[in-house]
Amino acid sequence: MKYCSNCGTLVDIRIPEGDTLPRHVCPTCNRIHYHNPKMVVGCIPKWEDKVLLCRRAIKPRCGLWTLPAGFMENSETLEQAASRETMEEANARVKIGNLYTIYNLPAINQVYFLFLAELLDLNFQPGIESLEVKLFKEKEVPWDEIAFRVIGIPLKRYFKECHTGEPSFYIDTLDNIDR
Amino acid sequence: MKYCSNCGTLVDIRIPEGDTLPRHVCPTCNRIHYHNPKMVVGCIPKWEDKVLLCRRAIKPRCGLWTLPAGFMENSETLEQAASRETMEEANARVKIGNLYTIYNLPAINQVYFLFLAELLDLNFQPGIESLEVKLFKEKEVPWDEIAFRVIGIPLKRYFKECHTGEPSFYIDTLDNIDR
Repeated sequence: MKYCSNCGTLVDIRIPEGDTLPRHVCPTCNRIHYHNPKMVVGCIPKWEDKVLLCRRAIKPRCGLWTLPAGFMENSETLEQAASRETMEEANARVKIGNLYTIYNLPAINQVYFLFLAELLDLNFQPGIESLEVKLFKEKEVPWDEIAFRVIGIPLKRYFKECHTGEPSFYIDTLDNIDR
Repeated sequence: MKYCSNCGTLVDIRIPEGDTLPRHVCPTCNRIHYHNPKMVVGCIPKWEDKVLLCRRAIKPRCGLWTLPAGFMENSETLEQAASRETMEEANARVKIGNLYTIYNLPAINQVYFLFLAELLDLNFQPGIESLEVKLFKEKEVPWDEIAFRVIGIPLKRYFKECHTGEPSFYIDTLDNIDR
């Protein structure tokens, strides 16, 4: 941020009175501009013993596989965000179930949420951000071609937990967000 | 948002190519400015059968009681945010436990997170945003003077669940955010 989004003046960076962190502050209209972490929300769309993955048509990690997920929008719930992203990226209809996992990604100011989900039919097809969408059994998943650790790690755990029952909620932190 | 925070030009509101929602778009530098929901994070600081509440010294709902909670900052985890807010508002040291509840508040573009927590000592005192901080047993809680429904509802449920065991995680939505 260089300019005040309220009045167009060049902003200062300083700690406002009563605050503890440096903020972008406008010297003209005195507006304080806060920057906060964003939520990325998706799901694990299940069909029998398979999971629906999307091959990315966009940067970063174009050509690699991921779960449907994306930035939560204003005016929606976490569950609605998960369902909408699944429709946008895979044209897939899902019933959103329990929250499965939360990952803190403090290095990139994001928090990731993945819900369990049931695919409602097999009429999925790639959305504009996907090259391909496909169902995979655990042994068929292209584990070396998963786009992000924050997807691969919970997906591996998901399949493991499915062997012994219903996957259950957990929360964790990834400090290193590289593949 | 009226001006582009990158170059200071007046922004347009339009749906960018390949997008589905209207965004603030700069006609000069083409920057798209996204606005996403914010996370509010806090905890339920427990000491024996009591919970630590803070009486608000700031608007909104100045003079009413709440749990320590506030906006998550960049570069921190949900757990760190809960702990930091408890220190800022009550100068209280806590051990953050399991995530207890998530509330979607789509009407105000927020998602609320409350963790279970153990107070580590009794050396708490009001922070700059609190008039008073105090431990309450369930029957002593000023239920009619709780600042927000998103605090009062889970707090009531928390005490109820404590009667029969460990409070367990749930996720819910409050469409109406009035008291």
